Amino acid sequence: MGAMDLSTLPTPSLVLDLARVRRNARRIGDLVARAGVRLRPHVKTHKCVELARLQTAGQFGGITVSTLGEARAFGAAGFRDQTYAVPIEPGKFAAVMDLHVRGIDLAVITDDPDVPAALDAVATRHGVRVPVFLEVDCGDGRSGLAPGDPLADAVCRAIAGAAHLRFAGLLTHAGHAYDARDPGARARLAAEECAALVALAERLRASGLDVPTLSVGSTPTVTAAPDWDGITEARPGNYLLFDAFQATLGTCTTDDCALTVLAAVVSRSRARRAVIVDAGAIALSKDRGPAAWDTAAGYGRVLDLEGRDLGLRVQNVSQEHGEIGDVPAPVLDRLPVGTRVRVLANHSCLTAAQHDRFHVLDTGAIVNHWAIHRGW
Amino acid sequence: MGAMDLSTLPTPSLVLDLARVRRNARRIGDLVARAGVRLRPHVKTHKCVELARLQTAGQFGGITVSTLGEARAFGAAGFRDQTYAVPIEPGKFAAVMDLHVRGIDLAVITDDPDVPAALDAVATRHGVRVPVFLEVDCGDGRSGLAPGDPLADAVCRAIAGAAHLRFAGLLTHAGHAYDARDPGARARLAAEECAALVALAERLRASGLDVPTLSVGSTPTVTAAPDWDGITEARPGNYLLFDAFQATLGTCTTDDCALTVLAAVVSRSRARRAVIVDAGAIALSKDRGPAAWDTAAGYGRVLDLEGRDLGLRVQNVSQEHGEIGDVPAPVLDRLPVGTRVRVLANHSCLTAAQHDRFHVLDTGAIVNHWAIHRGW
Repeated sequence: MGAMDLSTLPTPSLVLDLARVRRNARRIGDLVARAGVRLRPHVKTHKCVELARLQTAGQFGGITVSTLGEARAFGAAGFRDQTYAVPIEPGKFAAVMDLHVRGIDLAVITDDPDVPAALDAVATRHGVRVPVFLEVDCGDGRSGLAPGDPLADAVCRAIAGAAHLRFAGLLTHAGHAYDARDPGARARLAAEECAALVALAERLRASGLDVPTLSVGSTPTVTAAPDWDGITEARPGNYLLFDAFQATLGTCTTDDCALTVLAAVVSRSRARRAVIVDAGAIALSKDRGPAAWDTAAGYGRVLDLEGRDLGLRVQNVSQEHGEIGDVPAPVLDRLPVGTRVRVLANHSCLTAAQHDRFHVLDTGAIVNHWAIHRGW
Repeated sequence: MGAMDLSTLPTPSLVLDLARVRRNARRIGDLVARAGVRLRPHVKTHKCVELARLQTAGQFGGITVSTLGEARAFGAAGFRDQTYAVPIEPGKFAAVMDLHVRGIDLAVITDDPDVPAALDAVATRHGVRVPVFLEVDCGDGRSGLAPGDPLADAVCRAIAGAAHLRFAGLLTHAGHAYDARDPGARARLAAEECAALVALAERLRASGLDVPTLSVGSTPTVTAAPDWDGITEARPGNYLLFDAFQATLGTCTTDDCALTVLAAVVSRSRARRAVIVDAGAIALSKDRGPAAWDTAAGYGRVLDLEGRDLGLRVQNVSQEHGEIGDVPAPVLDRLPVGTRVRVLANHSCLTAAQHDRFHVLDTGAIVNHWAIHRGW
């Protein structure tokens, strides 16, 4: 493609504001560094090698991945220190071995008493040694063992005692912090996230087990900047791009949001006081974001090309249609068919995963196109 | 890949039941043919050339597309008669010209009074003649002009009077039929969908305008098999795969649903009576499907490998996690980490668009991998 800007890029397209990305990377990078905690960003938010390079610059270089497809793509790009932060299961053992044989030091996680022995048997056959974390549930209730559960100790000992596994430590994710709109509540959950790991680590250490890494992470808790005493690593992901959900939550302002979907008006109705844009359920994702707090949130906020909020929402989506309703007549006048807008979607991780590339916007021009490594 | 079946395919993966696809294609193909209506299936549901060939076999060969990316991919595969059923806007005129120059007869749609002249000017410069439909709103309220709106006549005349456009006729989509769970209500909406076009066509013809095609389409109205008197073309899409939403709506049975997501258990908790599978918001999509009628619908029904309903739902999703809760203890016993299940997701169109290929299942074996043409 030749020289492009927001007036010439095809629609719908994913637009990345590079200055904002740099500012977010610096803000959270500095925050974590000041606490003496290592930043292992979760690249699931963008699945993009260039963005991972940007956010790990000046850090130790480790990343977190959400799929083995990401592990392969980032491994090929030189990211050799990775944690796959979805519990491992036997159907993926062979793919994990393949990554280790190719020199990618991929740590895996589990909360299951039977996984360590099964994984050790396969690792032994392949002559590799796989780092394994216990996943701890700090209150989210999705996966992981409660820190007080005796099974937690048993799984850690099973990992530590396996010849071809290495006990990497404890890992947790305060996913429930996404439901906490009050900053005080987020700070409390962030403290609990840390405390859950520290308590279990103390018990394990008292029984003679080495617990190298205590890994926490979620954008709502990391931005709450808790006392990370005893914690060695943080894995936030969303903070690099932020989104309408985080802005409603209060972990960022809308001016921090770095990802928008460029869209064009394809239909305008004065009778319905509505326009239809060509960014629908696929281009935006069907994530309802802050619907629990903001019933009018819809699927994203509507901005003009300069990023100014028009005060409108994408109220409904079908596959390739986004419906923007309740448009005041004077605004409708300025939105004829062909007009371009930018949609600040609810959830940047899911929106990015709908596209195959970011179009990188820097001081008004599209300066690059960066690939998004989708798939599994 | 070598010989594969559901026990060896990587997870998550999209699995297509070929026998069911063939049965659905035959059922709706026969239904429409008996009515003397031409079937122009909407390929947005699958974005897959092989599936389009299967569903147009014995039909006239035209298809409907939802993106210009589909238009290019299907055009390259030999589908030269296409309708792009999202309103056209000036930013896409050049891409439409490019398709016409390459011999793809792509019809476009509009409900806008300014589009015909603008498109005609560009078509004139390129020396092509572009078929254009008026989009009619038959009650859905998304886009299109009401059949009684005088602007409808004006837009049709503007198209018909443009030297490098061809007035193709009238097109509508009863999207609101997706909200009609009662078969009688669907039949009524199907009749209204037809009547809206027929009434406007009669008025236009009385004023001397030729109206070649009257095109309706949506799976809920087509399966209602209305009296298609005066209608020349139907554009259903979802019927080829169906999904949990359509099964709840009653346009199909669960045994008609041809698309599932193969997933593996990655975590099991007796305390939470839950398992986590590796099919989350990306693999399934966040479409809430029949949530309005079935508040427990979640994000999909859980089946075993033979397709038997386990009576469980994917209650919550995060990016790569699907949470299956309320699992009875005896069922939990049969779902250790590594167990594979199939998820019948709510909305097959959006689920398919999350993946890059279908894995084609025929009498127990994966016999093919068919590409999904995503993007715009």
